[in-house]
Amino acid sequence: MPTVNIALIGYKFMGRAHSNAYRQVRHFFPGKLEPRMKVICGRDREAVTAAARKLGWEEVETDWRRAVERKDIDVVDISTPGNLHRPMVLAAAHAGKHVVCEKPLANTLADAYEMLRAVERAGVKHMLMHNYRKIPAVAFARKLVQEGRIGTVYHYRGAYLQSWLLDPKFPLLWRLDRKLAGSGALGDIGSHACDLARCLNSEFESVAGQLTTFIKERAYPEAPRQAKRRGRVTVDDDANFLARFRNGSAGVIESSRLCGGRLNYNMFEMYGSRGSLAFNLERMNELQFFDATEAADRRGYRTISVTQAAHPYVGAWWPPGHIIGYEHTFVHAIADFLSALERDRLPEPNFYDGVRNQAVLDAVERSAQSGRWEKVKCPI
Amino acid sequence: MPTVNIALIGYKFMGRAHSNAYRQVRHFFPGKLEPRMKVICGRDREAVTAAARKLGWEEVETDWRRAVERKDIDVVDISTPGNLHRPMVLAAAHAGKHVVCEKPLANTLADAYEMLRAVERAGVKHMLMHNYRKIPAVAFARKLVQEGRIGTVYHYRGAYLQSWLLDPKFPLLWRLDRKLAGSGALGDIGSHACDLARCLNSEFESVAGQLTTFIKERAYPEAPRQAKRRGRVTVDDDANFLARFRNGSAGVIESSRLCGGRLNYNMFEMYGSRGSLAFNLERMNELQFFDATEAADRRGYRTISVTQAAHPYVGAWWPPGHIIGYEHTFVHAIADFLSALERDRLPEPNFYDGVRNQAVLDAVERSAQSGRWEKVKCPI
Amino acid sequence: MPTVNIALIGYKFMGRAHSNAYRQVRHFFPGKLEPRMKVICGRDREAVTAAARKLGWEEVETDWRRAVERKDIDVVDISTPGNLHRPMVLAAAHAGKHVVCEKPLANTLADAYEMLRAVERAGVKHMLMHNYRKIPAVAFARKLVQEGRIGTVYHYRGAYLQSWLLDPKFPLLWRLDRKLAGSGALGDIGSHACDLARCLNSEFESVAGQLTTFIKERAYPEAPRQAKRRGRVTVDDDANFLARFRNGSAGVIESSRLCGGRLNYNMFEMYGSRGSLAFNLERMNELQFFDATEAADRRGYRTISVTQAAHPYVGAWWPPGHIIGYEHTFVHAIADFLSALERDRLPEPNFYDGVRNQAVLDAVERSAQSGRWEKVKCPI
Amino acid sequence: MPTVNIALIGYKFMGRAHSNAYRQVRHFFPGKLEPRMKVICGRDREAVTAAARKLGWEEVETDWRRAVERKDIDVVDISTPGNLHRPMVLAAAHAGKHVVCEKPLANTLADAYEMLRAVERAGVKHMLMHNYRKIPAVAFARKLVQEGRIGTVYHYRGAYLQSWLLDPKFPLLWRLDRKLAGSGALGDIGSHACDLARCLNSEFESVAGQLTTFIKERAYPEAPRQAKRRGRVTVDDDANFLARFRNGSAGVIESSRLCGGRLNYNMFEMYGSRGSLAFNLERMNELQFFDATEAADRRGYRTISVTQAAHPYVGAWWPPGHIIGYEHTFVHAIADFLSALERDRLPEPNFYDGVRNQAVLDAVERSAQSGRWEKVKCPI
Repeated sequence: MPTVNIALIGYKFMGRAHSNAYRQVRHFFPGKLEPRMKVICGRDREAVTAAARKLGWEEVETDWRRAVERKDIDVVDISTPGNLHRPMVLAAAHAGKHVVCEKPLANTLADAYEMLRAVERAGVKHMLMHNYRKIPAVAFARKLVQEGRIGTVYHYRGAYLQSWLLDPKFPLLWRLDRKLAGSGALGDIGSHACDLARCLNSEFESVAGQLTTFIKERAYPEAPRQAKRRGRVTVDDDANFLARFRNGSAGVIESSRLCGGRLNYNMFEMYGSRGSLAFNLERMNELQFFDATEAADRRGYRTISVTQAAHPYVGAWWPPGHIIGYEHTFVHAIADFLSALERDRLPEPNFYDGVRNQAVLDAVERSAQSGRWEKVKCPI
Repeated sequence: MPTVNIALIGYKFMGRAHSNAYRQVRHFFPGKLEPRMKVICGRDREAVTAAARKLGWEEVETDWRRAVERKDIDVVDISTPGNLHRPMVLAAAHAGKHVVCEKPLANTLADAYEMLRAVERAGVKHMLMHNYRKIPAVAFARKLVQEGRIGTVYHYRGAYLQSWLLDPKFPLLWRLDRKLAGSGALGDIGSHACDLARCLNSEFESVAGQLTTFIKERAYPEAPRQAKRRGRVTVDDDANFLARFRNGSAGVIESSRLCGGRLNYNMFEMYGSRGSLAFNLERMNELQFFDATEAADRRGYRTISVTQAAHPYVGAWWPPGHIIGYEHTFVHAIADFLSALERDRLPEPNFYDGVRNQAVLDAVERSAQSGRWEKVKCPI
Repeated sequence: MPTVNIALIGYKFMGRAHSNAYRQVRHFFPGKLEPRMKVICGRDREAVTAAARKLGWEEVETDWRRAVERKDIDVVDISTPGNLHRPMVLAAAHAGKHVVCEKPLANTLADAYEMLRAVERAGVKHMLMHNYRKIPAVAFARKLVQEGRIGTVYHYRGAYLQSWLLDPKFPLLWRLDRKLAGSGALGDIGSHACDLARCLNSEFESVAGQLTTFIKERAYPEAPRQAKRRGRVTVDDDANFLARFRNGSAGVIESSRLCGGRLNYNMFEMYGSRGSLAFNLERMNELQFFDATEAADRRGYRTISVTQAAHPYVGAWWPPGHIIGYEHTFVHAIADFLSALERDRLPEPNFYDGVRNQAVLDAVERSAQSGRWEKVKCPI
Repeated sequence: MPTVNIALIGYKFMGRAHSNAYRQVRHFFPGKLEPRMKVICGRDREAVTAAARKLGWEEVETDWRRAVERKDIDVVDISTPGNLHRPMVLAAAHAGKHVVCEKPLANTLADAYEMLRAVERAGVKHMLMHNYRKIPAVAFARKLVQEGRIGTVYHYRGAYLQSWLLDPKFPLLWRLDRKLAGSGALGDIGSHACDLARCLNSEFESVAGQLTTFIKERAYPEAPRQAKRRGRVTVDDDANFLARFRNGSAGVIESSRLCGGRLNYNMFEMYGSRGSLAFNLERMNELQFFDATEAADRRGYRTISVTQAAHPYVGAWWPPGHIIGYEHTFVHAIADFLSALERDRLPEPNFYDGVRNQAVLDAVERSAQSGRWEKVKCPI
């Protein structure tokens, strides 16, 4: 079987999730191309060597540019903090490699657009890892929307709520530094909410946003117990916005890292002329569906266990009722990516989505500054 | 036992709910003042006579001004469409009667303020029927907040979602006419969401709003089947806004009458530094509480059945686990109102709340016009 | 309007619930007969006089036999402990009065049968207060079953779980004394589970039972703090049984007063060839329905809000989504009772149900003794 | 790293789940022994060769005896229908191999005991694949029980409900043939319910059972559309029993394959003197916990997201709120198995559990025959 050689940059949370996807994909999703876990890349040789062994990579590199330029590499997978996405994507495109990139694509809209242009010019395939599109329940929701089962959408609610910043002793990690992370709740988890809204409902037309940093100072991670070594949190920890979508629907999007008891509460509700849908990542194998066309005395939200062979991606796994977990979404994404390579198609979502998502986040940031509704200005 | 004579204006949905409250209150909540259901008032003599018999009123009037001015009347209860609240309150105050008024207090902020001034000048007691404050679970939530059980509030979400306008054949009732109803989803159900937010969290500082009328034309109620007799819907059917509260918390408020499967989905979520709360009117006997101070491995949202004798109002009803229903909230409100009369106190919520709520709605309407954040300008 | 004069015996929990039903019924359910709350009966004159005033009764009696024999009384309503049902029913029947009786009908099957024979001979109407049949969601479930929406029933589960005996300091009330209460969890709450199973599914054929008394000794109520004044609990606090129904289905019934966190958890699940139903009294306005005939990828349990005008009893109350509470079930029962009197029909459920339920409980008790399956031996 | 060579017999549903566990275990659970996926065994060479490639095995065998006797094999993993467990275990023990065996251990109690004796005599390690013990929420529940957080257990309910036999066209597979499967719902899924009850609560003392075959005839799998080729279903499709546990608690266990909408509804509820627990496999990352020692006005079932690093097994996977799926339970089981080999301990659960579970099932079958309570007669 022809192989496609992968170089992965990053070996923390996302690096682990991507590695698992490459390891598992062909055991569940057959295909013509075999991914080969060629090289994993990180600055700390000892740590990356241990990661290679644990995660199943053949070789290590400590200089990402070397990994990107290796002749034997076909795909560069970027699982690093957001500020490194741009140089890595540009280098990979320049070297003619296909690219898989973690979200958000970039820390600014201009960077995102430049990165899109680079992969376009290079003619390489590009995928953006908005993995939640790959949840069977989400893909099935999209199918129901496309079938017209909820009719014309009037009202869309998206929220991604977490709680990990609730502890004031949580240290000042890179995700809380604007220079490294670009933005806070908005870019990290609000970007997922944007992507789902675009995937399920419509492109955004305009937004009115509100960004807040409630906990403004934290201890540096090296020395969390020394009260004096504290620094400023330079990103939002709570980000909300109203939206008008191109299809005319009204939208409300929330994202926060200060919502106690919400561990990974990425949810949406869609209300249309013929029905409604509701989903929550913490119960990611379920989809709520309300069919407004049924008789008034016997309709109601039904909980669909999206674990049937007829549901997207599910046939590859286990019998009905046997749920899958978080990391499976990455397996689905890589299966789709490999399938796109095989068929010489562009995988989805891709850098076009990255630019469009970034244009929404950009408008939210402008609105939070200007205090008014702002149009989404997308260069594509 | 001394009696207090009531005149009720209106005998439809709200008139029925208020009547039930006067009938039931002393069977469950003992007190020193006995409410006497003296007179019910409506324009259609036949209909109001039938209502009097069914609802338990001694007499009828067809001219509300006569009812208000009767010497034997102590309390005027106004359960009519919003455009009639102002003249009725002014007349009742002028006649020196205590007033119970349905929400929203008025159709404009100026009217609401004038009405407040009138009852203040007259020195009469005034109550605004935001009955949802009187739900045991809501009153208990307020107690938990006041005890500091959720700490400093960061993020507040309120939503009141209904679905009764989803049917395009639903006729053009008074609630869809701006001249009679003042506003649509915003004033009718958004006002409840505002009142709960003010009751539970804080006064509002500023808002950014979005009002939409999705279904712009409907048949007149007299002739719903004649396609030609159609008129314009002049109020919003979907109203959302962002908020900044005076206590610093961020807020998101939704209201809509186009949300399929949400019949009476009046809900809130509060996220604070020490815990979270969640409530939904469709399960109004339950409160969700998350205590962030518990050990990470065993904390979680708990469903409190707010049906214990120790919970507000509940001791008057049934043993634990025996739930109460919608109309009980009005019984609680009237119990509180009578208790305030007995103790010569102002009941709660009252016209001050009415003015403050109206100031929020007013700011939302201004923001929806201006396209920018607007300060809440409250005359009191 | 012709009136029907009621004598109520008992003024505690059940007396309060029945009184409320007589007060409220005609304000929501119009009819040709007006119930008149003539006399309430209790041994303690002071207490019953206070109850009369609070609950709305015209007169009091301290000797129930006098109340039963009064010429002006048409209906005797028995809301006393189980050991008094028999003499009261026999006296009422002898006096030619219609009878409403709390459940369980009697403390033994023989008594129940004797009571049925008495009312039959007297030609009076008789109703047994299994009020949970009168929940809209339960009545609607029955309708779905009768329409064939769940097909042939295979598996039935009923459970009535409470927690009020979990506290070992809870005193030795009459309900824990076999001589007064007949049995424990089995007769008190298990009898409700039996009645629902018979109403929704089928008559019972045979049972295998298990009765346990976990907490065998408690303090007497007069002196709960004096450790020496303790007595034996002579009834079960946990009662479970397997069942075979006449329609061939298999059944499992649980009842317990020792289930922490279950306050009033009266639930059933029915599994049939075409669908399933699930209900829980703690969320009594909801019914879960699974339609097995729908496509596998989009079916699931739907939560029906049984608050629509089209649902049984609901039209009399409030608009969709405005829930009702526990005491409404008694209003429905009394509405049905009065309607039966008007039409000279036997109300439902009645003493035939009482005898049949008692026959099931009797078989469970025999089985718990014999250690084997026992046939249900019903004299009718 | 020292390796341990595995031979897997069977490559269908369970073979796939076990293979995944061997592939994944060391990427998440480090250890001193490396499992090597040496050989997979099946009768159909073509099919087993394809399975080896897809599932990651080095070699294939078509004769299980040859696989078992290979010198290079350390562990025999048996994932075949129940009637083959006995000869395979006996052969593996005779060959001195450690054994992992799917549940139920055997089709009869006598077989199970013989198999236990064989592995004991051989001095090999043995594990029984009751994988649901390895769910973090179940392991955490056990911890809470052991900590005394629910006190003395009074009432235990277990149920394993599925729906795959609801379709009358479902063919007559081996699982419906008593000679191959031993029993039906009882042995297949009821055995899981037994094992959880024993693991969480106590050994069983005695039982009263009920076995039913509702759909008595089905088409053979080869020719499901030819109505004439039909055969008898010789196992139960619905199996319920009452139980008395050794710790004195009362139990109710249900299992059925005819419960529409229940796809993999393996649940338990435990009610004790200090608290309660509830779990359902369809939401396997959640545990419901009620703490009866908390104040009455604020206690309630809390939903614990068992996805914290502090929970059993979870630290190896993803951050809080990122759920795991069905197959992870096998990874945990194999991690425990390898860890037991490393430390020369007996893994858990093992064949002692298999014999004890079988003794319960045996008593249920005897009771279903005799119509009376039967003691659990366990040879160990």
